[in-house]
Amino acid sequence: MRGTVMYGPRDVRLEELPDPHLETGLDAVVRVVASCVCGSDLWGYRGVVPTKSPRRMGHEFVGIVERVGAEVQRVREGDFVIASFYDCDFTCDVCRSGFSSSCRELGWYDGCQAELVRVPHADGSLVVVPDVRDELVPHLLTLADVMGTGHHAAHSAGVTAGGDAVVVGDGAVGLSGVLAAKRLQASRIVVMSRNPVRQELARRFGATEIVEQRGEEGAAIVNEMFDGIGAQSVLEAVGTSESMEQAVRSTRPGGTVGFVGVPNGVPQLTLRPLFSDNIRLAGGMAPVRNYADELLVDIMSGAIEPGLVFDLELPLADVAEAYAAMDERRGIKVLLRP
Amino acid sequence: MRGTVMYGPRDVRLEELPDPHLETGLDAVVRVVASCVCGSDLWGYRGVVPTKSPRRMGHEFVGIVERVGAEVQRVREGDFVIASFYDCDFTCDVCRSGFSSSCRELGWYDGCQAELVRVPHADGSLVVVPDVRDELVPHLLTLADVMGTGHHAAHSAGVTAGGDAVVVGDGAVGLSGVLAAKRLQASRIVVMSRNPVRQELARRFGATEIVEQRGEEGAAIVNEMFDGIGAQSVLEAVGTSESMEQAVRSTRPGGTVGFVGVPNGVPQLTLRPLFSDNIRLAGGMAPVRNYADELLVDIMSGAIEPGLVFDLELPLADVAEAYAAMDERRGIKVLLRP
Repeated sequence: MRGTVMYGPRDVRLEELPDPHLETGLDAVVRVVASCVCGSDLWGYRGVVPTKSPRRMGHEFVGIVERVGAEVQRVREGDFVIASFYDCDFTCDVCRSGFSSSCRELGWYDGCQAELVRVPHADGSLVVVPDVRDELVPHLLTLADVMGTGHHAAHSAGVTAGGDAVVVGDGAVGLSGVLAAKRLQASRIVVMSRNPVRQELARRFGATEIVEQRGEEGAAIVNEMFDGIGAQSVLEAVGTSESMEQAVRSTRPGGTVGFVGVPNGVPQLTLRPLFSDNIRLAGGMAPVRNYADELLVDIMSGAIEPGLVFDLELPLADVAEAYAAMDERRGIKVLLRP
Repeated sequence: MRGTVMYGPRDVRLEELPDPHLETGLDAVVRVVASCVCGSDLWGYRGVVPTKSPRRMGHEFVGIVERVGAEVQRVREGDFVIASFYDCDFTCDVCRSGFSSSCRELGWYDGCQAELVRVPHADGSLVVVPDVRDELVPHLLTLADVMGTGHHAAHSAGVTAGGDAVVVGDGAVGLSGVLAAKRLQASRIVVMSRNPVRQELARRFGATEIVEQRGEEGAAIVNEMFDGIGAQSVLEAVGTSESMEQAVRSTRPGGTVGFVGVPNGVPQLTLRPLFSDNIRLAGGMAPVRNYADELLVDIMSGAIEPGLVFDLELPLADVAEAYAAMDERRGIKVLLRP
């Protein structure tokens, strides 16, 4: 089969790789229908994180089950499935407590910017979706990561009906956070963005206001917008010390920062501002598997269209171009079809 | 009147100072019945935080109201009152939202390791207690800070009936956290302490287990004690990067660190471990004024005896010795009577 391998900065190649096969009775092998490039894939692409040895890429996909192991009970050959971006058993106490992204059996599958993928805990990680029409594919694909992650940011930040939400970051996750806040019926949703295309999608997703300024200046404007003291719920979807600081500064005393930006490097947070104003920090690696069923209902009914974050679709053969487009911010998020 | 002034490391003096007087119609002047030395006073005493110019000391006291300004309505001359460690109006939106320690009129009064104190927002900051017997004084004094702060740690960490609590720090605040967790009906309370006197009081306050190890080793033991993954609720009552890291490492995926230790210097927190396991951070400078009424009921009924943290009582004249005793850990917390 063909699959994507990163060799180093700006060196992503589609290669002939061995087909995956069932290794345990709990496995499934899935034929990829669609995958995509994640903002976090760019850390390696940009050389911010070194690529020490060639690495298979991709962790978000939907597909059709080709084969299942002898012990797999729920998932069957021919099923259309959504994979979470991590592998989990979805039966342990940690999964059941709502945090499957810290599953006791947590694992990762080989890169899914490919034609075939082996999923180690098929019954745990895969969500079966019946009667999938092709136009639903982009929306369903977001449940593998970005829509679940956006929801996690909003949920962690304590967004409530009639409440507020400020979103730091206008990438696919930030925009999904806007949609999630709208879905949770926030009445005021501010997105911090200086990109007209992203601003437009943010508005379509439910943003009521846009702030173009960043850092201290941006936070000061947000403070002013919310009684001079900032918002109750702030979603952080970037993952740097700077964006986290901007989020904290935008939060009112007793408010919450829901952070889901993947920390790039070892960002540090100064405790003093959190301490002085009792600003809570919640969130982290999103347990998207726990949210999938709930969000799926709203996708199937057409209530939400999170797949609009995919503004570019390319064949898998053009995966290098997909990375370049993301890197140069020519696309919000690129969908790949084998 | 006599009052305490810090001149520099290990140089604390009781001096003759001008009597305070009413400056606005909202003021009260209160005669101190009892005050105490706070762990945070030791940062200056130890020279960890520089004392740039002589500084009046003390921020926890109870007393009898001597005079009130023309606009004061609730508090009257002769009332026994508990002061919060900060000054607040207790009417603004932030106070009403539960976070009076970030009051829009937030202020500080001059040091109360003294005979008289001016309180700027008497109706906001002072809690009137009728029919006070002298033996209640130490217990009531804890509502000015440590018991309210311990409660804030437990409350912020999400301690629930039947749940767990791990307390990092065995000072007066940590021990108050133990008592607060017990009051919230936690069924398992672990305190991290290697001091026999403090361990004993912790047990009296409701600790069910004690861990003497610190750092990574201590956290590993706590993890083992709780299903191999740590506790749901961890109270941090020290305020250093190390203690915070120990607290985070002791918390299970999806659990919460309630932090109330005053950050000494600019401690930084690495975001990655919070991110990986969705560990929440809540707490900060405790809004003790918001908790006073609720906790007062339990003190008056004898349900809790938080004043047991005062294991040494000295006359105000011996304030220098009070600091030395705290510094050398000869006393958990020293009560001062003018």
